[in-house]
This record gives sequence, structure tokens and C-alpha cells, in this order.
Amino acid sequence: MTLDKILEEINKADSIVILTHENPDGDAIGSSLAMYNILKAYGKNPDIIIPEFSKIFNFLPGISEIKKESSVKEYDLAISLDCPTIKRLNGFANYFENAKSKVVIDHHGTNTMFGDLNYVNPDAPACAQILIVMFEYFGFEITKDIATCIITGIITDTGGFAYSGVTAETFEFAASLLKRGVNVSDVYKRVLQTTTKPCFELTRIALNRLEFLENGKISFTYITEEDMQKANAETGDHEGIVTIGRNIEGVEVSVFARQIDEGWRLSLRSNDYVNVSDVCIMFGGGGHPKAAGATLTGSINEVKDKILAQIKRYIRN
Amino acid sequence: MTLDKILEEINKADSIVILTHENPDGDAIGSSLAMYNILKAYGKNPDIIIPEFSKIFNFLPGISEIKKESSVKEYDLAISLDCPTIKRLNGFANYFENAKSKVVIDHHGTNTMFGDLNYVNPDAPACAQILIVMFEYFGFEITKDIATCIITGIITDTGGFAYSGVTAETFEFAASLLKRGVNVSDVYKRVLQTTTKPCFELTRIALNRLEFLENGKISFTYITEEDMQKANAETGDHEGIVTIGRNIEGVEVSVFARQIDEGWRLSLRSNDYVNVSDVCIMFGGGGHPKAAGATLTGSINEVKDKILAQIKRYIRN
Repeated sequence: MTLDKILEEINKADSIVILTHENPDGDAIGSSLAMYNILKAYGKNPDIIIPEFSKIFNFLPGISEIKKESSVKEYDLAISLDCPTIKRLNGFANYFENAKSKVVIDHHGTNTMFGDLNYVNPDAPACAQILIVMFEYFGFEITKDIATCIITGIITDTGGFAYSGVTAETFEFAASLLKRGVNVSDVYKRVLQTTTKPCFELTRIALNRLEFLENGKISFTYITEEDMQKANAETGDHEGIVTIGRNIEGVEVSVFARQIDEGWRLSLRSNDYVNVSDVCIMFGGGGHPKAAGATLTGSINEVKDKILAQIKRYIRN
Repeated sequence: MTLDKILEEINKADSIVILTHENPDGDAIGSSLAMYNILKAYGKNPDIIIPEFSKIFNFLPGISEIKKESSVKEYDLAISLDCPTIKRLNGFANYFENAKSKVVIDHHGTNTMFGDLNYVNPDAPACAQILIVMFEYFGFEITKDIATCIITGIITDTGGFAYSGVTAETFEFAASLLKRGVNVSDVYKRVLQTTTKPCFELTRIALNRLEFLENGKISFTYITEEDMQKANAETGDHEGIVTIGRNIEGVEVSVFARQIDEGWRLSLRSNDYVNVSDVCIMFGGGGHPKAAGATLTGSINEVKDKILAQIKRYIRN
């Protein structure tokens, strides 16, 4: 089976590179570091390449060993974690493409199976959850450090066990990770409950601008590049803003626009029935049915009009 | 043992009343309704008396059968859930005091053991978690409805599995409740993630007024009675505001003041080392080391100066 073949590739490889998607979230970082740490413990010396990530993950074991780039031209084995398409590996797709053997481990339903070997389970609410099964099958020991990386992936990708993909198995896995010594409340606090000062300032600005449209069924807000400069914002400091709108009673779709060099990066979240991935696909974006994104150009009012016109088509009265 | 004696009292009793603490939270409501539903299934016809509660709990099985008061003078058995002292039963202590047999089930470390029979486990992060053990010992069947009441208690009292009292056992219990058909993401959404419009408006106002003091170690904000009227706020609509301050990087103590008839109701939260219960005791209030409250009189600036002067004594530089 695939897992046996993956272990075979790991055993054969002298050089291994671990990759994940751009703008990495906790599942991307947690899964990648879990793989990195366990391969090191197994006697391998992999490279883990993630050019940029939020400093909230600085507590994770192995984080200081993450590289921004590599001089290796051709790895024996490349492992992509939590990434649905080769395109989302972004500038690092070359490491994957040039590798002699390519392995994809993921939980996105939209995964394009771009590896030679693909271990994709869309039923897992986090890529990190898949790793538990995999490591146990391999006979790899999940230490406290590795369990910390895994629980970070599960907690962030399930919003703290809140999303509908969470099953009894997720809680059973969590119990088993706690038994390995993981401090779940500490991880929780660091990755879900800590707001940086710049994030707080951006939230304050975004909340002030938040408008309710279509009878309160759509919420819309934005932040500009100037706001981000004034707030000394770094990568990740806008995370969570789109969720505030989604959680307000009566809102079906929450839209958050963030100004970037190319225009505006839109994040959409829905509650019940609007497939925001369908909305974003209209603009060359995409994602999940209840969480998706797209990039649009124009003034903020133009962008707002464009996206609202599409969302309104799906809103029920 | 105590559990056998409690079951004996339940078997003997013709009339039973279920009580919980004032300003009931999700654990108080969830535990009380779990007990109510299971006793009904067991063939008893208990009364459950809770004069006031937030409408976010309206989805809970049995909620429509809650009474505001009772005409029964002397119950055979009174069961108090999630309540540390008879004082916190508030206006309903008489139902407890007049009962022939008094049972206390709780998880507060400060419980005064005010029943004839007391089943108190301070290691449980929620009173509802204790009920799982109890019902299983009794041989009572935990149906999907009862499991929904129990998970509501666990989710709310652990902040969604986030607090330090959560153990591997909590996750194992959660897994067992999910296997009984509980929709955990639905409960989560209803009790932890839904912001009412008035709550959003109050949050927006409070965030605009939020100040950082003592080098960012204290956050302070407030809302007035006028704000609440303008926002059409009801009971509970200010919940969560104090947490926003506590979650900001660098903040040790978050203070939120809410104007009430008698003056200002202050909520304090701390992160690491300040015992806010000690701070609040100075003003006749109290609570837990990291979550406490007090009522102060005066203008908002006077109140702010008074509370800050006390907090500063504990802040480390």
C-alpha cells in the first residue's frame, strides 16, 4: 500500500526536503515540523523550507531549523504537506519538481494528487491528524515535541475542535497526544488566543469600517497598506479578522479585503449555505465551500461592488 | 459510597427540584438540564428552576420546561449543580434549605459542601464532566439529548477545550459523547462563536476606548448604560469583551467596566501572575485568581484610578 511505498522512499533517500503551502497556517507549519522532527529522530537529515511564517509559531520544536531556501538542486525525496496543488507551493515548486521522488500528504478535498505517491484523506480535519496514523503505521515514536507540532495543526485547522470535520476520532487522537505530555492549554493560548498589538490595531480599524449589507446577511470590511504600515503589521497580523464578521448573528457571508501590491486580497467565510469557493472561482481564486479567497484589482469601492454582486446571487431572502 | 447514597435518595424521592447558581453559564444550564432529562427518562418528574438565562441556550433539550419559580414548599430531594455555596443559589436557596434531602454536585475547589451528600470533584474542568461518571455508575443511558447538554457544559467551562483543567480524560469523554450523536460543531457555534448584533456594537465601542497602561501590561476599557441602550443590549451581550484585552500580547491584566445602576461592574482577567481575586477583594468583590469582579462607585475616571492603583501594586517591571 501507499504507506509502505512512502516508507520505502524515506529509507532510500539520502536527501529529503519538506515543503508546505504559501502563507502557512498552523497545520502547514505543525505538519511540516512534525515530519521534520520525526525524520531526524529516524536518522535522516531533512531540509525544511518555509520562506515566511508568523512568529506565533516560534515555540514549536525545530522551528529555528527552518530554512528560507536551499542550494540543493535535486533532492532524492520531496514531501509536500497540507498543500492541495503544486501551484500553492509557489516559489518552491522547483524543489518538488526537481526531486527524484515526490510524496504528497494532505487532507484537502481539492488535492490534485500531484505527487508520485499521494496519501490524501479528505475526511481528516487537519493534515496533522493524518500524520498520527502514518507515524504509528511506520512504528515511529510520537514524542512530546512531535505531539506538540501535531496538536498545533489540529487545533488551528479545527478552530479549537470547533469545525464540522471534527469527529470522535479527533478527540481520541487529542487524548493520546495529551498522554504524551502535550500542554494543550499552552498551545491553544499561543496559536488561537494571542493577539499581537498590530493585530489588535488592525482589528480595531476593521471593526470600525465593518458594514452590514443585504439586511445584515453580508458583512464587509477592509484594511489598507497604510493601516498595516501604521500598525507595524507583519505576516499573519490580519488573521482572524474575517472570522469576526462571520460570527455575528444573521451574517451568512463575511468578506475581509486586505490591500496588497497587486490589488486587494479578499477572504470570504460563510456560515450555512453560500459556497464561497464558487464565488471566488469567478475571480480566479478558490478554496473550501465555507472559506475561500481571491485577488481583485481596482479601488476598494470597485472591489466591494464586484464581490458583493457575486455574493448576492447566492443570498437567500 | 456517596454515589450509592445519591441514587438511593433519587429512588426514594417523589418530588425533586434541580437548582443551579445565579447568572447561569453553559455549565450551570447544561448540567442542570442533563440531570433533568436523565431523571425524567428514569421515570421521575423533577422541577428545574432557573429564573433567568441567556437565549443562546434555547436549543438545549428540555430548556422550555425550565420554571422561574415553584409552588412546592418542601421537596423530598433538592439537587444543586455547579454551585459552590448556598449563597450563590441566591433567591432559590429556600427550595434547597426546605428540602428533606440535599445533594450537591459540583467541581469548584471552593465548594463549601453545603449538602447532606456532596459529590465534588475539583479536578473536573466542568460540572457536566462529573455527570458522565455519575450517570454511567448509575447505569443511566446517556442519550444524544443528554450528551448535548453535557458537551455544552464542557465546551463552555473549558473555553472550547482551551483551559488548563482539560486532561486526556476530557477528550476521551468528548469522543464518547460524539459517538452518541452530538453535533459538537453546532453546539460550539451556538454557545461560543455567536456574537449578537448588540454584542458586536458594544465590542466595537469598547475596542475604540481600549487603552494600554503600565507599558502595555494593563488594558482598560468600558461601556456606559447609554451605550447599552443604544445597542439594544440584553443580559449577556457584554460577555467576552474582557477577554479581548487579556488576549493581547504583553497584557497581564485586562479590565472591563460596565455601568450599572449601582455604579460600575468591573471584570478583571489576568494571564500569568497577578491574582485578580486579591485585587477585587479590596473592593468587596472576588472570584478566581485569573478571573474576578467587583462593583465600584464614582465617575469612570475615579473608578479607573482606584482599580489601576491596586493592580499596579502587583505588576512586575
